[in-house]
Amino acid sequence: MNRLRLEAMLRRFFDEDIGSGDLSADTVFAADTMGEVRFYVKEDGVFCGADVIRCGFALLDARAQVELYCEDGARVTSGDVLARISAPVRCLLSGERVVLNMVQRMSGIATMTARAVACTVGSGAKICDTRKTMPGLRMPDKYAVRVGGGFNHRYGLYDAVMLKDNHIAFAGSLQAAVAQVRAQLGHTVKIEVEIENENMLHEAIAANADIIMFDNCTPENIRAWIHHVPPHIATEASGGINLDNLPAYAASGVQWISLGFLTHSVSALDISARVKF
Amino acid sequence: MNRLRLEAMLRRFFDEDIGSGDLSADTVFAADTMGEVRFYVKEDGVFCGADVIRCGFALLDARAQVELYCEDGARVTSGDVLARISAPVRCLLSGERVVLNMVQRMSGIATMTARAVACTVGSGAKICDTRKTMPGLRMPDKYAVRVGGGFNHRYGLYDAVMLKDNHIAFAGSLQAAVAQVRAQLGHTVKIEVEIENENMLHEAIAANADIIMFDNCTPENIRAWIHHVPPHIATEASGGINLDNLPAYAASGVQWISLGFLTHSVSALDISARVKF
Amino acid sequence: MNRLRLEAMLRRFFDEDIGSGDLSADTVFAADTMGEVRFYVKEDGVFCGADVIRCGFALLDARAQVELYCEDGARVTSGDVLARISAPVRCLLSGERVVLNMVQRMSGIATMTARAVACTVGSGAKICDTRKTMPGLRMPDKYAVRVGGGFNHRYGLYDAVMLKDNHIAFAGSLQAAVAQVRAQLGHTVKIEVEIENENMLHEAIAANADIIMFDNCTPENIRAWIHHVPPHIATEASGGINLDNLPAYAASGVQWISLGFLTHSVSALDISARVKF
Amino acid sequence: MNRLRLEAMLRRFFDEDIGSGDLSADTVFAADTMGEVRFYVKEDGVFCGADVIRCGFALLDARAQVELYCEDGARVTSGDVLARISAPVRCLLSGERVVLNMVQRMSGIATMTARAVACTVGSGAKICDTRKTMPGLRMPDKYAVRVGGGFNHRYGLYDAVMLKDNHIAFAGSLQAAVAQVRAQLGHTVKIEVEIENENMLHEAIAANADIIMFDNCTPENIRAWIHHVPPHIATEASGGINLDNLPAYAASGVQWISLGFLTHSVSALDISARVKF
Amino acid sequence: MNRLRLEAMLRRFFDEDIGSGDLSADTVFAADTMGEVRFYVKEDGVFCGADVIRCGFALLDARAQVELYCEDGARVTSGDVLARISAPVRCLLSGERVVLNMVQRMSGIATMTARAVACTVGSGAKICDTRKTMPGLRMPDKYAVRVGGGFNHRYGLYDAVMLKDNHIAFAGSLQAAVAQVRAQLGHTVKIEVEIENENMLHEAIAANADIIMFDNCTPENIRAWIHHVPPHIATEASGGINLDNLPAYAASGVQWISLGFLTHSVSALDISARVKF
Amino acid sequence: MNRLRLEAMLRRFFDEDIGSGDLSADTVFAADTMGEVRFYVKEDGVFCGADVIRCGFALLDARAQVELYCEDGARVTSGDVLARISAPVRCLLSGERVVLNMVQRMSGIATMTARAVACTVGSGAKICDTRKTMPGLRMPDKYAVRVGGGFNHRYGLYDAVMLKDNHIAFAGSLQAAVAQVRAQLGHTVKIEVEIENENMLHEAIAANADIIMFDNCTPENIRAWIHHVPPHIATEASGGINLDNLPAYAASGVQWISLGFLTHSVSALDISARVKF
Repeated sequence: MNRLRLEAMLRRFFDEDIGSGDLSADTVFAADTMGEVRFYVKEDGVFCGADVIRCGFALLDARAQVELYCEDGARVTSGDVLARISAPVRCLLSGERVVLNMVQRMSGIATMTARAVACTVGSGAKICDTRKTMPGLRMPDKYAVRVGGGFNHRYGLYDAVMLKDNHIAFAGSLQAAVAQVRAQLGHTVKIEVEIENENMLHEAIAANADIIMFDNCTPENIRAWIHHVPPHIATEASGGINLDNLPAYAASGVQWISLGFLTHSVSALDISARVKF
Repeated sequence: MNRLRLEAMLRRFFDEDIGSGDLSADTVFAADTMGEVRFYVKEDGVFCGADVIRCGFALLDARAQVELYCEDGARVTSGDVLARISAPVRCLLSGERVVLNMVQRMSGIATMTARAVACTVGSGAKICDTRKTMPGLRMPDKYAVRVGGGFNHRYGLYDAVMLKDNHIAFAGSLQAAVAQVRAQLGHTVKIEVEIENENMLHEAIAANADIIMFDNCTPENIRAWIHHVPPHIATEASGGINLDNLPAYAASGVQWISLGFLTHSVSALDISARVKF
Repeated sequence: MNRLRLEAMLRRFFDEDIGSGDLSADTVFAADTMGEVRFYVKEDGVFCGADVIRCGFALLDARAQVELYCEDGARVTSGDVLARISAPVRCLLSGERVVLNMVQRMSGIATMTARAVACTVGSGAKICDTRKTMPGLRMPDKYAVRVGGGFNHRYGLYDAVMLKDNHIAFAGSLQAAVAQVRAQLGHTVKIEVEIENENMLHEAIAANADIIMFDNCTPENIRAWIHHVPPHIATEASGGINLDNLPAYAASGVQWISLGFLTHSVSALDISARVKF
Repeated sequence: MNRLRLEAMLRRFFDEDIGSGDLSADTVFAADTMGEVRFYVKEDGVFCGADVIRCGFALLDARAQVELYCEDGARVTSGDVLARISAPVRCLLSGERVVLNMVQRMSGIATMTARAVACTVGSGAKICDTRKTMPGLRMPDKYAVRVGGGFNHRYGLYDAVMLKDNHIAFAGSLQAAVAQVRAQLGHTVKIEVEIENENMLHEAIAANADIIMFDNCTPENIRAWIHHVPPHIATEASGGINLDNLPAYAASGVQWISLGFLTHSVSALDISARVKF
Repeated sequence: MNRLRLEAMLRRFFDEDIGSGDLSADTVFAADTMGEVRFYVKEDGVFCGADVIRCGFALLDARAQVELYCEDGARVTSGDVLARISAPVRCLLSGERVVLNMVQRMSGIATMTARAVACTVGSGAKICDTRKTMPGLRMPDKYAVRVGGGFNHRYGLYDAVMLKDNHIAFAGSLQAAVAQVRAQLGHTVKIEVEIENENMLHEAIAANADIIMFDNCTPENIRAWIHHVPPHIATEASGGINLDNLPAYAASGVQWISLGFLTHSVSALDISARVKF
Repeated sequence: MNRLRLEAMLRRFFDEDIGSGDLSADTVFAADTMGEVRFYVKEDGVFCGADVIRCGFALLDARAQVELYCEDGARVTSGDVLARISAPVRCLLSGERVVLNMVQRMSGIATMTARAVACTVGSGAKICDTRKTMPGLRMPDKYAVRVGGGFNHRYGLYDAVMLKDNHIAFAGSLQAAVAQVRAQLGHTVKIEVEIENENMLHEAIAANADIIMFDNCTPENIRAWIHHVPPHIATEASGGINLDNLPAYAASGVQWISLGFLTHSVSALDISARVKF
């Protein structure tokens, strides 16, 4: 993650929560009363968010001292202490909610990704994300997928091409669409094409797309068709894939499996903060 | 929702997704090819996000025409068309993902809130949210709770006081904590106190807190203790409440029930966009 | 005050004054010539702005060393030295005007507030502010009122309800207005109602408003009517109150007195900076 | 005023006051209930702020229709209606406070400036402002001075040079200071020098400063010395000048008189808003 | 280009130039005096910047009417009128410099790119840019390259991998570096490797890099080595290439030629504005 | 330069280039692998950009240690090492391009300015810039001109008046234009007038303009006319001046020569970065 961008995000998030001031902490605690907070997990999972903890409290108060007991990607067990921060109590109380909201979401994404990755063991298939991230949180959302053992699909509309039914229909044909795009874009951009049936697959191969996405195809169909794809074209399955049918997709021979649910319906990992002073 | 703030959010979110430009749409479609997109739901729920659709496409292109077929709070059924937008195809394709990500989340929150509200029918208890919203999205997250029939708890650390174990311990006693806060804050701010047992309840009543929160108490205990609370003090239950035990809490006589899961682990409502040109 | 927000404000203010650079200091002084500045008051009053001095110079130059000789709320006498800052002379000269403009205004507000508070001695009435602050400066303006011994009324349109003639007229009646608002808002929000005569007072009591504001009522009327108000409803006087009639209002039995002039027509406290190198 | 910059300021100010939404207006009024607001003055003065009214409501709602009954600089009398705006009531109620706070301050500055200008009638002396404006409001503060018949001194540290005692001491002499600055700056920048006695005046003339400021000098001294100044050097008086001694300064023969109190201790002009629907 | 991002840039640029207001135009012209400006070229070249002209004046004044006589990419000849804008004269005078500075740079880039492209005619080689753009202007700089007939290399550090000597040295070998990157990144990201000699070329081919860049190689060497590269690996030449030796590089068989000078040392195309009223 | 503004610019520029992260450095190098980078020049020139190097790397990583071997304005020779920075390799690789792009441009401007200044040796004429800077970069562009031995013309439309043909035509005459402006502006603002022939020159002198600009006049004409100008009016030549005819202009007796090409068509100075670890 770009640390400068992360800091800018945290500044906005603290501003949203703290506003003109923390009415509770600022009226009860003196400015220099020191304390400490411990973050500990209340369910098993994969931890993600070390930099959020490090930068978050440091932004709020330069006196904050952060000790992390595990790094991003660590498997954590209910009861584990993740981090200990000593700082003025006001800083701890004012900052913990934003930090927790972020870390819980990121750890939730990493944990779910790890579960998805576990479903592909032995298959060679790799898990990746989509653009179905929470607006404003794409960078940490996608980082959490990597931490969980997954990979990032394109970051946005600006860094790779995805040609869907509409693009193809407007261009006249799949091959025309690929050709039109290739004629306008540089060599650092990959062109991915969604295909829905065997006919389109052959067109995509003929068009020499960089990536062929099997969109809402069954594992059986993918397995039946995939041997046509030459080795320098990457293959991806997407659409209607969940933890139940993921092993079947992973076994279909496809290289990449993209999963929207990793980021669009996140179960926060249960993490608590306990403050002492 | 403050529309100026919503627009500022949408500008940031579009910038995050579109970046320097939509490589796919801009290379395939001409600048003035018009098209239309329909949003339709793929599962039953409560719709939320009308202003996101209205403002979103208008920001991207002044030619966008938005027709909404239902307003925020409407019960929608799988297959319902929510909205139709006609605009240049580039605008539709570049904008739909951000709009969908927002609308799916907001509708997911409204839907879950409505489910929680349904569990309280006949009880007089009201459902409210917490500060466990997604950083950067507090305004739309809390709006969606209202749309689903719930209510908003405080917006941040700045608009109401919540005294927890730490505040009380530092002040010396619950009554000291309330007194200390009351001596410093104006009359427009409510003071809420978390209590965990009957002793604390009596202290909170003696302190004349504005709101007493039963923190991680059983419905039985709440029912047993709540008659002590005078009518001008509001009561709230929080902690460990889910859809299963919610009816029991609602029946306990408590007035407000705050639920973190409404916003911190959101299942997006399944909504699709179909573009035509 | 939220320190991150204060810093962001100071950055904007320095940018406004310094622009592309301080033509005078940068052409006369060498980059590493050190100096010191002393701030001293030239009239009696209440000091406010310690954090502005601390953060301001530190933002401009990390070498700045700030010694404060009094804290916010201290009574100061003409001639008192408030603070001594040693830093590169360029930093001192480029920064002093913005810091002074802020500290003079904040101290002016605190001083005037203290004068108003002095008018209420022995009465139990408390002084509070309004939303008539300077745009962009609400946080420091309201902080200065607290430092002067006053209290904050609501921060904005978002953290408390105030029902005036228009709201009441549109809702049909005072009671309808309160009921309509209460049905939509959570329990952490207080509802205040402006009343102008005894009839409205009774309606407001019947509506169980949280706060009743006597709007442009005479002290005599307030005194005559206030005994009707039950103890859990707060009372406030507003409109046409100045230092002359303030004691009469304070003696009327009302609990809160809100004064727009604390922040909308501020006399800056006369503070000077003397630079040495 | 730069309209784009004014709009950016108003966006920030509305955000400060409205926050996540106007709890009162949004819960009482329907989104499309139209109304109108009239602004009228309650004391005599000079009106300033037409663009704030025009842009302010338009930013909040594109349906706002603004009719202005007087332009900036108009003398207004208690009771005059300044403007009528028709718009959705929500827009009117949410926007009026920020607009009023700005217009009252700007009109207060214009009114005080006009009073100062009136004290100079017949003298040829011109009134100007200083950098003692409210942080964040320099553009509208200085605009209001112009509207009141005054002139703007430098906008910030970046657009003109002012050499004070410290600059002179460090450079070794007044002439050295001017020479050092002139050697580094282009021909579009004016160099002003503060002088405190006749000796310094002769040095400043010898240094060929563009502007000589009589700092805390008596009108008598200015009158006695000013004939030495050649016609192409501008003269300015500053320090300790108020409405009482202003005529004496104006009569001293000095060309420019700068007054900090125009902007640092502003009495807001009393303006009210009356909403109807 | 992303129009929202372009508008945000133009707002910043106008703010930089206009500041608190255009002293010349605002004091001479009345607010509603209409006028028109014509942009015409004073040397032959390729025009680029239509959207800058369209958005720029519209941002400053909604009354601006823009007529464009040529679109981006048009060959223009000295004397050609590019556009005519009618608007208030103040808007025209305040806006023309920023618009011109942008359009001249963008047209200068497009013109130079077209000259470079002309040097490759018949060769099949394509011209692309680098990250040597002007900070803050990457989007318009890279857009201008496309308009001139060139292509865009990666937009930043975030959308493609470039492995240079340092990366390779740290990883231990070229193949190790590619393997390490590939193991961490998704399938939408291309991996480019800089090679300097035939040995490295063979390593890069063995590593199956997506793009092989001949860094500072002679055209002769490229020609001698390039037949080893399999068809699915793209080839690029970079380093020390200018308009003189460009034909030789183009004839070497390499597919892509990246040129830093397209954007880092731009000759502005001479374009003038003539205002009438 | 205003350091706070420079830092804000660098933050934006790093964000533009690094985006969500440096795919190459972050996947190859460990977070704490330290390295160093040396900047060295590859052609003779004048160095400019010390603060960009100092602030740039410090913003990216607090561990960065910067050693500068020459200061702004130093003549550098091909091969000279300018600076050495030790920092984590990730920081060095992610930051070097933005820093280089800035330093190359600034040094290119300083170098060209120094060449122009050299053409005026012995003449007393001084070189200055124009508003033809790169949008977003006015502060560093104008700083670089000063570093190269030149001077700054006005910074923008807000800090000095320039009356051109249009202003004069609208006002009715040159003298009317000057009078109209002078009547509205304070004494710290200089008024410059463009003149094209001897008639206008006499009008400008009669109008007592502060600066007279000979616009597109020949050196011969300037020499013939300039003796009419009284000593307190500054003179400037502009338009159609290049390095070839610059000595003639310098010898014409004019005091200031403004050159658009210093900033609008910049040849970057060739500077390289060599990273080691």
